Amino acid sequence: MKQSMTLIPTLREVPADAEIKSHQLLLRAGFIRQNASGIYSYMPLARKVLQKVEAIVREEMERAGAVELLMPALTPAELWQESKRWYSYGPELMRMKDRHERDFVIGPTHEEVITSLVRDEVKSYKRLPLNLYQIQTKFRDEKRPRFGLLRGREFIMKDAYSFHASQESLDEAYQKMFTAYSNIFTRCGLNFRAVIADSGAMGGKDTHEFMVLSDVGEDTIAYSDSSSFAANIEMAPVVVEYQRSDEPHQELEKVKTEAQKTIEEVSSFLNVNQSNCIKSLLFKVDESFVLVLVRGDHEVNDIKVKNLLEATSVELASPEETRTIMNCSIGSLGPININSEVQVIADHAVKAVVNGVCGANEENYHYVGVNSDRDFSVNQYADLRFIQEGDPSPDGEGTILFARGIEVGHVFKLGTRYSEAMDATYLDENGRTQHMIMGCYGIGVSRTMAAVAEQFNDENGLMWPIALAPYEVHVIPINNKNDAQRELAEVLYSNLQDKGFEVLYDDRAERPGVKFADSDLIGIPVRITVGKRAEEGIVEVKVRLNGETLEVHTENLIETLRTFIVK
Amino acid sequence: MKQSMTLIPTLREVPADAEIKSHQLLLRAGFIRQNASGIYSYMPLARKVLQKVEAIVREEMERAGAVELLMPALTPAELWQESKRWYSYGPELMRMKDRHERDFVIGPTHEEVITSLVRDEVKSYKRLPLNLYQIQTKFRDEKRPRFGLLRGREFIMKDAYSFHASQESLDEAYQKMFTAYSNIFTRCGLNFRAVIADSGAMGGKDTHEFMVLSDVGEDTIAYSDSSSFAANIEMAPVVVEYQRSDEPHQELEKVKTEAQKTIEEVSSFLNVNQSNCIKSLLFKVDESFVLVLVRGDHEVNDIKVKNLLEATSVELASPEETRTIMNCSIGSLGPININSEVQVIADHAVKAVVNGVCGANEENYHYVGVNSDRDFSVNQYADLRFIQEGDPSPDGEGTILFARGIEVGHVFKLGTRYSEAMDATYLDENGRTQHMIMGCYGIGVSRTMAAVAEQFNDENGLMWPIALAPYEVHVIPINNKNDAQRELAEVLYSNLQDKGFEVLYDDRAERPGVKFADSDLIGIPVRITVGKRAEEGIVEVKVRLNGETLEVHTENLIETLRTFIVK
Repeated sequence: MKQSMTLIPTLREVPADAEIKSHQLLLRAGFIRQNASGIYSYMPLARKVLQKVEAIVREEMERAGAVELLMPALTPAELWQESKRWYSYGPELMRMKDRHERDFVIGPTHEEVITSLVRDEVKSYKRLPLNLYQIQTKFRDEKRPRFGLLRGREFIMKDAYSFHASQESLDEAYQKMFTAYSNIFTRCGLNFRAVIADSGAMGGKDTHEFMVLSDVGEDTIAYSDSSSFAANIEMAPVVVEYQRSDEPHQELEKVKTEAQKTIEEVSSFLNVNQSNCIKSLLFKVDESFVLVLVRGDHEVNDIKVKNLLEATSVELASPEETRTIMNCSIGSLGPININSEVQVIADHAVKAVVNGVCGANEENYHYVGVNSDRDFSVNQYADLRFIQEGDPSPDGEGTILFARGIEVGHVFKLGTRYSEAMDATYLDENGRTQHMIMGCYGIGVSRTMAAVAEQFNDENGLMWPIALAPYEVHVIPINNKNDAQRELAEVLYSNLQDKGFEVLYDDRAERPGVKFADSDLIGIPVRITVGKRAEEGIVEVKVRLNGETLEVHTENLIETLRTFIVK
Repeated sequence: MKQSMTLIPTLREVPADAEIKSHQLLLRAGFIRQNASGIYSYMPLARKVLQKVEAIVREEMERAGAVELLMPALTPAELWQESKRWYSYGPELMRMKDRHERDFVIGPTHEEVITSLVRDEVKSYKRLPLNLYQIQTKFRDEKRPRFGLLRGREFIMKDAYSFHASQESLDEAYQKMFTAYSNIFTRCGLNFRAVIADSGAMGGKDTHEFMVLSDVGEDTIAYSDSSSFAANIEMAPVVVEYQRSDEPHQELEKVKTEAQKTIEEVSSFLNVNQSNCIKSLLFKVDESFVLVLVRGDHEVNDIKVKNLLEATSVELASPEETRTIMNCSIGSLGPININSEVQVIADHAVKAVVNGVCGANEENYHYVGVNSDRDFSVNQYADLRFIQEGDPSPDGEGTILFARGIEVGHVFKLGTRYSEAMDATYLDENGRTQHMIMGCYGIGVSRTMAAVAEQFNDENGLMWPIALAPYEVHVIPINNKNDAQRELAEVLYSNLQDKGFEVLYDDRAERPGVKFADSDLIGIPVRITVGKRAEEGIVEVKVRLNGETLEVHTENLIETLRTFIVK
């Protein structure tokens, strides 16, 4: 592609409202332009990157046995009413009325549409399993669109849906899709983890998010430093075996701790470790109240509380509720001598605390010399805290570290959530009606491009991995008024294309400084500079990723390029 | 692709609401399913056909120098207000409000968005010309969606927009795009014509529509039987040289024609040819009234009237207006002795009428022996009628025939319609501000698929041309419980794919009749039936398009297939 024929509107300045690297650089390098908040045009270079992501996705989907179709963006409200999401999705669901005042949803996802399609066409177990995917523009009315393509309102996704007559069949498809996703993000060059995720209110069980490691990610991942274990921090089990010290038990004593409220203040005031304090939090769990105890240096993980108690809703009690139930303020809570109707559950670590400190349910007082079971009773010990850096990895291999992640993919066992709501059934081998068992699998295609931009850049611009680069080679004559340089550049442009390389040719009448700055910004993997030695047939080859530079005779150019650009 | 893994929901019955062949067959062969009125899912086979159309479009666009990008579907209302189309587009424009009550258009076309993008990024003549295209889903809220994909509310289009610093540059791009369009529809196997079209209210000049010839088309095309001339009938000039007979002029006479109103009735009653009658129609042209005369066997083309009089609006006068202006009913109109304030214009053919018949502006009377210029005066003679079959072709070659056409493409010189409205300017070589000159170029991608289905079918189903076929070869074992047949079929499935053929393999446990009926319906170009002679290594090859059948040894199969499937 001749640069004069395409549109690559580079910017020298960092756009004011772009907070993160990928957003800044995709704007500056002329890959995207904003048309409205959270809504972007993909300029020619971005379109090429997206096509490469899409091609990789298609190849891996086909290999996993998924078949491509394309559903509409405008989806009738009736389907969303059947699934009830019309009522529960909230303002992120974009709705519109047609000229006949019929309601439509501009689709953020397609569980409803695909379920209705398969329900209408598949009646027998003989036609299952089925795994259908599409690559399509999706719409979600984010309250606060931000970070460029990472959280936009119109974005490109690959979404797949599988339908099964048995759990085993779903498990098999899930595993295939898991492998496909790993392949896709590996081929995109991303540093990512498949992370155990919360199946949330969807009713499913297994679910993994594919997270690209990045400081700008909105999620925190706990991962092992020596195995493939990774989980959203709220999902990571804690497997520490706490040792109770054999220090002699002191007497329980109430001490004055005037104005000392937080764990930090109290431990410092009493000169004890935070790990010797017992933190007490009162939760409203569905309709009853539960006191949850964790060690002072730990944090309660309310998802674990929710799962332990098989509750629908878990939230911290308000100051008023705390006063009513415990007759004290939130900062004074403790487990000793409390109303026996309040259930007490404690993290395993609390059991190992010897001669600890806890609140006295009385302003300005704490207990010291506290020992569990002697001084207070616990209905149940369980894993109730968030995992921390330094904890052992739950799979027994290595130590936990934290990282931030950008979610680029999600695989999910839906079960019968949609097939029951929408009555998608088949006849099994015995002629009995059964609900189809479903899985769903998403990849943010445009978000993947942004995640790659976030991971591959330096102070001069983007640095595309070969597999996703808009072009593989950037040919730049230093002075295109010099006949030898221009002619050699044009010959190379043409020859390299004939040899199957994707070439961007800077034929613009710009100063060398502008051309090099643009080239660094755009980030084509290999640059060929045609300069003073053009007449000798010698050009400079520079690798964007590591800055490696070498002078090469054009006779050896193809061979040299093939060492950098392996297809 | 194994048929058991994909979803091809064929139907035996013709769906009740599908009026035309392509709609019926795309439904019956499992290519599409309707999700709402005018809104369809493209099932796996259709998705593949669309991808083939898209690949051809991309190749030809690149060859024509157009560069791909992708604009959003959600476009801010402000842009449409700038161009004024927010106010003029009517209910076909799909509008919606986001959660902050901001207005958006769900784009039916992207002149506004592309003009705003280029306006913001291109400031100098040095960056022109530029030709940008996208392949994207479009939305238009048709009042009466019909004919399946031919007139839907959500459809796939390729739209391109070019920007220029001179008319010559636009002309050059227009010619390249014209060639690209001809190549695209030729490669799709379509029988089409590039038709001179009405540039309508767009203010442009040159415009061609690419029309697929089909009886179900909504437009009528006048084309030459011996040249490439083709035009929408309203755009075809009439170049007949009418000869005035030298028959002696009779006296003008008013005759009673009790209850005879139409040209047919009057000519029959008076025993004259319709071509000897003069038909008079009163038009309201902007704010004045004009009497238009054509021969009795001709029809007034109001676009020609409009163009001749350089009018904004041309419509037939109402009975009340006719009474007020001419003091008679519409059926009695004639040009003799009328109010001199009413302008009279006449088609050239009227001048050649000798001793004609016309209305007398009086109920139940006509004039006979009418001769133009002697009995009535005409302000201007011009080409004012619709062309007819049998007329000479305007390019001087051959005779005009009519055909119906489906519009699949449109190339259009927009001029400065949008650049002026939206202030898209550049600095020319002299540093002066100029409005960019634009062209726009559309192809209905999903409509092209339907047009191919409409042209390629027989009583048994679809018959895809190789270039667009979802698969090239359909491998069918007659009895897949027979080991020899099943094993040979599987070997062929695998080998043919290795050789680069796209193969659909019917591995379903269905009766042969079902498999063959489905195969005919789906319309893969070449079918390989593996039957009784499997053990000898002999299979049957059948060409869908012409029914040609031959028995082939598997050793010669690749060679045989290559004669049918030329890539």
